[in-house]
Amino acid sequence: MRERHHEAMAGEHMNMTKQIKRRIPRIRMRHAPGTQPGLMVAPAEAMAPKISLLAYGPQGMEELKIERIEEIEPFLKSHPVTWINVEGLGDVDLIRAFGERFGMHKLALEDVFNTHQRPKIEPYDEHLFIIVRIPRHGEHLDTEQISTVVGKGFVLTFQETHGDCFDPVRKRIRNPSSPIRERNAGYLAYALIDATVDNYFPLTESIGDRIEDLEERVLTESRNGAVGDIHRLKRDLIVLRRAVWPTRDLVSAILRDESPIIDKLTRVYLRDAADHATQLIDLIETYRELSGGLLDTYFTLLSNRMNDIMKVLTIFAAIFIPLTFMAGLYGMNFEHMPELAWRYSYPALLLAMAVAGVGMLLVFRHKGWLGGGDRH
Amino acid sequence: MRERHHEAMAGEHMNMTKQIKRRIPRIRMRHAPGTQPGLMVAPAEAMAPKISLLAYGPQGMEELKIERIEEIEPFLKSHPVTWINVEGLGDVDLIRAFGERFGMHKLALEDVFNTHQRPKIEPYDEHLFIIVRIPRHGEHLDTEQISTVVGKGFVLTFQETHGDCFDPVRKRIRNPSSPIRERNAGYLAYALIDATVDNYFPLTESIGDRIEDLEERVLTESRNGAVGDIHRLKRDLIVLRRAVWPTRDLVSAILRDESPIIDKLTRVYLRDAADHATQLIDLIETYRELSGGLLDTYFTLLSNRMNDIMKVLTIFAAIFIPLTFMAGLYGMNFEHMPELAWRYSYPALLLAMAVAGVGMLLVFRHKGWLGGGDRH
Amino acid sequence: MRERHHEAMAGEHMNMTKQIKRRIPRIRMRHAPGTQPGLMVAPAEAMAPKISLLAYGPQGMEELKIERIEEIEPFLKSHPVTWINVEGLGDVDLIRAFGERFGMHKLALEDVFNTHQRPKIEPYDEHLFIIVRIPRHGEHLDTEQISTVVGKGFVLTFQETHGDCFDPVRKRIRNPSSPIRERNAGYLAYALIDATVDNYFPLTESIGDRIEDLEERVLTESRNGAVGDIHRLKRDLIVLRRAVWPTRDLVSAILRDESPIIDKLTRVYLRDAADHATQLIDLIETYRELSGGLLDTYFTLLSNRMNDIMKVLTIFAAIFIPLTFMAGLYGMNFEHMPELAWRYSYPALLLAMAVAGVGMLLVFRHKGWLGGGDRH
Amino acid sequence: MRERHHEAMAGEHMNMTKQIKRRIPRIRMRHAPGTQPGLMVAPAEAMAPKISLLAYGPQGMEELKIERIEEIEPFLKSHPVTWINVEGLGDVDLIRAFGERFGMHKLALEDVFNTHQRPKIEPYDEHLFIIVRIPRHGEHLDTEQISTVVGKGFVLTFQETHGDCFDPVRKRIRNPSSPIRERNAGYLAYALIDATVDNYFPLTESIGDRIEDLEERVLTESRNGAVGDIHRLKRDLIVLRRAVWPTRDLVSAILRDESPIIDKLTRVYLRDAADHATQLIDLIETYRELSGGLLDTYFTLLSNRMNDIMKVLTIFAAIFIPLTFMAGLYGMNFEHMPELAWRYSYPALLLAMAVAGVGMLLVFRHKGWLGGGDRH
Amino acid sequence: MRERHHEAMAGEHMNMTKQIKRRIPRIRMRHAPGTQPGLMVAPAEAMAPKISLLAYGPQGMEELKIERIEEIEPFLKSHPVTWINVEGLGDVDLIRAFGERFGMHKLALEDVFNTHQRPKIEPYDEHLFIIVRIPRHGEHLDTEQISTVVGKGFVLTFQETHGDCFDPVRKRIRNPSSPIRERNAGYLAYALIDATVDNYFPLTESIGDRIEDLEERVLTESRNGAVGDIHRLKRDLIVLRRAVWPTRDLVSAILRDESPIIDKLTRVYLRDAADHATQLIDLIETYRELSGGLLDTYFTLLSNRMNDIMKVLTIFAAIFIPLTFMAGLYGMNFEHMPELAWRYSYPALLLAMAVAGVGMLLVFRHKGWLGGGDRH
Repeated sequence: MRERHHEAMAGEHMNMTKQIKRRIPRIRMRHAPGTQPGLMVAPAEAMAPKISLLAYGPQGMEELKIERIEEIEPFLKSHPVTWINVEGLGDVDLIRAFGERFGMHKLALEDVFNTHQRPKIEPYDEHLFIIVRIPRHGEHLDTEQISTVVGKGFVLTFQETHGDCFDPVRKRIRNPSSPIRERNAGYLAYALIDATVDNYFPLTESIGDRIEDLEERVLTESRNGAVGDIHRLKRDLIVLRRAVWPTRDLVSAILRDESPIIDKLTRVYLRDAADHATQLIDLIETYRELSGGLLDTYFTLLSNRMNDIMKVLTIFAAIFIPLTFMAGLYGMNFEHMPELAWRYSYPALLLAMAVAGVGMLLVFRHKGWLGGGDRH
Repeated sequence: MRERHHEAMAGEHMNMTKQIKRRIPRIRMRHAPGTQPGLMVAPAEAMAPKISLLAYGPQGMEELKIERIEEIEPFLKSHPVTWINVEGLGDVDLIRAFGERFGMHKLALEDVFNTHQRPKIEPYDEHLFIIVRIPRHGEHLDTEQISTVVGKGFVLTFQETHGDCFDPVRKRIRNPSSPIRERNAGYLAYALIDATVDNYFPLTESIGDRIEDLEERVLTESRNGAVGDIHRLKRDLIVLRRAVWPTRDLVSAILRDESPIIDKLTRVYLRDAADHATQLIDLIETYRELSGGLLDTYFTLLSNRMNDIMKVLTIFAAIFIPLTFMAGLYGMNFEHMPELAWRYSYPALLLAMAVAGVGMLLVFRHKGWLGGGDRH
Repeated sequence: MRERHHEAMAGEHMNMTKQIKRRIPRIRMRHAPGTQPGLMVAPAEAMAPKISLLAYGPQGMEELKIERIEEIEPFLKSHPVTWINVEGLGDVDLIRAFGERFGMHKLALEDVFNTHQRPKIEPYDEHLFIIVRIPRHGEHLDTEQISTVVGKGFVLTFQETHGDCFDPVRKRIRNPSSPIRERNAGYLAYALIDATVDNYFPLTESIGDRIEDLEERVLTESRNGAVGDIHRLKRDLIVLRRAVWPTRDLVSAILRDESPIIDKLTRVYLRDAADHATQLIDLIETYRELSGGLLDTYFTLLSNRMNDIMKVLTIFAAIFIPLTFMAGLYGMNFEHMPELAWRYSYPALLLAMAVAGVGMLLVFRHKGWLGGGDRH
Repeated sequence: MRERHHEAMAGEHMNMTKQIKRRIPRIRMRHAPGTQPGLMVAPAEAMAPKISLLAYGPQGMEELKIERIEEIEPFLKSHPVTWINVEGLGDVDLIRAFGERFGMHKLALEDVFNTHQRPKIEPYDEHLFIIVRIPRHGEHLDTEQISTVVGKGFVLTFQETHGDCFDPVRKRIRNPSSPIRERNAGYLAYALIDATVDNYFPLTESIGDRIEDLEERVLTESRNGAVGDIHRLKRDLIVLRRAVWPTRDLVSAILRDESPIIDKLTRVYLRDAADHATQLIDLIETYRELSGGLLDTYFTLLSNRMNDIMKVLTIFAAIFIPLTFMAGLYGMNFEHMPELAWRYSYPALLLAMAVAGVGMLLVFRHKGWLGGGDRH
Repeated sequence: MRERHHEAMAGEHMNMTKQIKRRIPRIRMRHAPGTQPGLMVAPAEAMAPKISLLAYGPQGMEELKIERIEEIEPFLKSHPVTWINVEGLGDVDLIRAFGERFGMHKLALEDVFNTHQRPKIEPYDEHLFIIVRIPRHGEHLDTEQISTVVGKGFVLTFQETHGDCFDPVRKRIRNPSSPIRERNAGYLAYALIDATVDNYFPLTESIGDRIEDLEERVLTESRNGAVGDIHRLKRDLIVLRRAVWPTRDLVSAILRDESPIIDKLTRVYLRDAADHATQLIDLIETYRELSGGLLDTYFTLLSNRMNDIMKVLTIFAAIFIPLTFMAGLYGMNFEHMPELAWRYSYPALLLAMAVAGVGMLLVFRHKGWLGGGDRH
């Protein structure tokens, strides 16, 4: 087996903290370019794997934590569907053992460890290899990779971190009267994909709230932080779109694929999941347009306000600078300035100043500069 | 049956008021992600259902309000076409009973309750399931979902709220000599879709008026509120487009579909409806371009005006600030300033000031700053 | 027959004047949404129809004004091609009579009256129904609908207003040696479409002139009204594009259609017409890009000039405001200001002022602010 | 034969000068709309035709100027390939005679004279009719039309002006050992198209230089004329793109076409020409993006500089305006101003002024306004 | 053989230095337009070729530097796969000899020397001709062309410069137990393409770092050089995209191609390489969007700051300019100004000034101008 790239090793710990703070989508460098394909290296921040097994059928259901691969064999035989869920990618050998047990290609196994894959499906002879991404809640919107292998009688899932969004599916399996008990492994795969897609709904909903809030702030001038927030909103939408677009494509690809693993009944449900994904995409695109329009609107309102500020400045300057000049004129100390001695030159000057000031105001009112700006 | 998501329950009343005020398109979170597909939950603001039945044929026509599902059976047998219209989605059990009576799939029934679907058609063996959206008039442009099931001899429609836009269709049915009396249920479905599409025409027309009005305001500087209005206009166009684009697609899908429910004669009319939808889309896209151009034009004119304001300020400042300095100079109280005692230094200074001021004006006229800005 | 929508009636006269002033493309609301398809209502501003007949063939040609539909029958029999041209849509019954005489579908007849159709072709069994739009010259660029029915031995055209652009075609028909005399009705239809497409050439040419003129104005700062003119230019290009794009599509559709009404020889000519339409579209798209770039350039030059204005202001302010302050300082009336009594404090101050002013100028020259702006 | 449009005649001379100065792509109005197709009118600025003949084959090669069409007949028989090159379109009758000799359709002949065609290919039974455009060097980037007819044993080219870019091809033909001598007329057509495509390479190269130069100027603030130059650059790229895009399409169309005129060996070379055209398009699109980005960058840097200017102005104004006010206060002539008589009020005031000024400077340094702007 | 274009010769040395500094993608002018296709000229900066041979198979492996073409013959026979790597294109005759040995078409050979090709594949009967580009690290992001010929039992690569990114592949070949030893020449070609694609990963990663860094700088106002850096970032992304997009297309083309050189097993690996290229493209497009949004955000923040600056200026000017005027008024030297003699006019005036100043401040606070700008 090959060794990992040198510098990558050295910077591993530093990367781990950095990884978590990253705001911008990345592909992590997997290993030195040009190395042998199918090379498996655990991601820098990988957790130790926790493996759970859930085997069920119309007759009953068993659920347990397992540690060695041999433990799963009896369940594969005794139950119509066995779901093995691996949370955490920290043990390359163990995960490879599972993969090889179910006939995974080494390129597929490599993808399990390279956790920046796009959602995709790869049909193999005996199973389908599916990658989806679920949203991970943190300081920044981010997503986590879930690799799924669906074959006859089994579903194998690999998750990046501990804790997932599949508890509702587990609850349905535990319920003896739930229809999922009657169905095969393909239906379980559908249920997992559907749960994945559904997980984006509250997230997208919250983005709708953010846009509405920003719109309020932008249009009512209480504009604290609006630019930064719009920027972050747009970035989050880009992250969301990168996760949801290929998810829909992958569901469509399963539907087009003739694989016997997905039976006709499950396809009806998958069509529904595809429909949900389409709704998400439609909404995300709408939000992208709205947030783009928001920046334009904000910017134009900003210019509007600048115009108003400039008008105030110009009005003050244009009125008082000439008057100050006139006052300065008669503040000069020339010995021969006959006006200084005249009886009514002071009130006459005051009158002239008032006329000049009022005249200037009339000019500005005529220009419409006194009416304030855009009332939006 | 599953229980509704917890927090959703608690916030229901608050949501109801919020729902009505929402300006931004949403997908409401239907229920906890990952729950069983086909789950039916009435929308938060659902009204109690009012059900009306309209059965007709060449021989005659009957119209009544019904409350129990059994009441419809005789009409289904006695009349060629029966139209059952359910307004309000507040009673899940009743609506499910209707749906199951006509063989609806539970995923389709779920869509009836999730009232943020995109317009779509789903062909089933015995019927077509069609979702369209009609504009709902309120403070903000919004749309309402109408779910339609068309089968042999019946049309079943589910509307979100009481009151609809189908009265003209009802009038035509009531008229004994109207051609609609001779036609089958597929034609009635067409008539409803056509009425839906036609409902967008006055709305689009009014948007044309808003654009024309805004253009007038932008180009003639009476620019109160233009930015906010352009922003709202663009948002309304986005909402409109989201409703109309998939409507055309759905009409095209019906035309492509080989379903016997839609006979050849009705297809000719549907082609006409598709044509109307195309016109709407064409116009909406044109309006989107126009409103985008409007913001650009507005913004450039704003900058033009800013230039004019700055010119005024600069002209005043450049003329009077130096003059004020000169006046200030001779306002100093030094004991040894020989000019102060000269006989003609005051008129000489006045002359110098006039020369400086006029010279400055000539420079600005040469720069073209005295001619005002852009006359548009 | 149904009555027209109520409010529409009341506002008819007002609409008529408004209609003519409209600058923004519209779909006029045809009648109340949901009413029976195939309803014919004359447009608000419809003129009384003038009908002319032009029958020709290799043997000869006849041309007359007609008033009743029966007058056309003999010509249909005696001449290979009869062209009936109806100018003005003010008489619904008469026009319907013509339409029914030639087997038009009532939906097609409805389209004749709804004069905001997009250019399109609808093939029927016995004839083709074609809608094109020709430019109408007025204060704003607008287009007018021409509906054409082409069948075996006849062409029937309906125009919105009196006066058209087909005189060159008529001249060719009147000329006994013109090849058009030898050809069938399909060729006449081609000749009319070709004349329609050609009519956009001088219009597009004039838009090229406007762009060139605007470019000159924008780049040489003689920028009166440039923004408004660019805005209008962009709007006109949108109107043009809406008319020409579907025209090319319709010509292509005729070419693809297998209808025997268009024979092989005519198809060669239609290909030429499609080529002309492609040239128009290519040019319109080029002009759209150029006019978009023009606004960007204008706007950047505007900012350039703003920079220059601000530099002038800043130079004056930064030089004279400190000097004025220094003068103000020695204009104070404190009793204990020893400098006031010194012998050379006045010239020393003047020197200090000169040094400060020149130093400031040097700083600005170093910053490059004295060299003027962008010389484009 | 029809007469030319009246006004066009009158304005001909004026057009000629204008034509040459035109910067914006145009379609010249060919003749009155609606006139008979196939009408040939020499372009306004057409030159008298110069005709040259170049006949060659493995055995030998002949080259001569010809004036009458009869002169070409012997060469057509005696040599495998005859290339007749007509430079200048000033003689309609002569050119029509050539066209008819080689069986050109009158619509194709019309296109020869309408020199604003897009590059295209039209396959006829006996020959291919190809239009390409070569760059014409002048004050503004412009292109010139070359119409080519390729048939069995002959190539006929029509050029708008005297002088062309085909001398390298002629040299290869004159060279007895050149492979072109062994090939047929289709290969000659390829050689001409290839020379055409190659002619755009140095032009595109020079645009790369212009972009690099502009980038230098924009980023280093030596920004004289940058806006106008970017604008012209973008316009030139639009012109280039209009010429090159359809050229690639036409080469692809020849490759798809099954015409026996282009043999298999020539197709290999044509694929190479298509590849070159793709490279050109790729580069032109890249340049378009770069030049668009350049304007954005320029504009943002401009705003940056504006900010710097405004900071200078604000710093001066905010420091000296209050100080001047304080000085003005003690320049007042009230009789009862006790401070005026105090012993240390002058130095105290000077101190207060220094404190105020320095305080203000500290505030501005805290705001980061003293550090200059963006150092790019 | 033909001579090179004249001016090109003269400017060769100058070009060589220029070539290296070029920041903008170019197609170098290959030779005079219209010259014979298949002309080979070494690029201006070509290095003398270094040729290495690597022959291997399950039995063993040989590696040596060669100088004459005859040296390779024994290896071609004795080993299943022979890889000949030519680094540097400075010797046209030698390279042509290699090309001809392996049956390369002269157009393909010409492409080897024209080192600005887009990545592409050209299938020939006996081999595939593939061009890829690898990133070249230097002051500016640039790419280098690698031309590859893959046939039965051999791979021939031509590189522009000495030194490459294929060392990991060589290491794998040298390792006797590596699977690559078992595979054919098609697999070696895959390994080289895969190494090429992988080489873009760290580069793209570093661009992610640059965007994150720029985002930090833009949002926290430490904005030194941000505009120039964003500009350079966008340019680098354009260069990257030009290299990666066609690479994916070429891998897809190999997959579609039925060539027996690429066996089924290798195709599985190529699909993986295509997947990596798709990930790169996805990320590059995301980065393009992010960097575009960054400039918008930067620009809007800039305008925000300008607003703040203008507010400070306006507040100072609007408060102190009127006060200075008032002070100037009582600094006038008129003999008849009764206020000057009043007992309390000085404190009254001071009070009036304080009231005016505070009033002005209240007005500005009401306008929200005192609260600073956008806190992002």
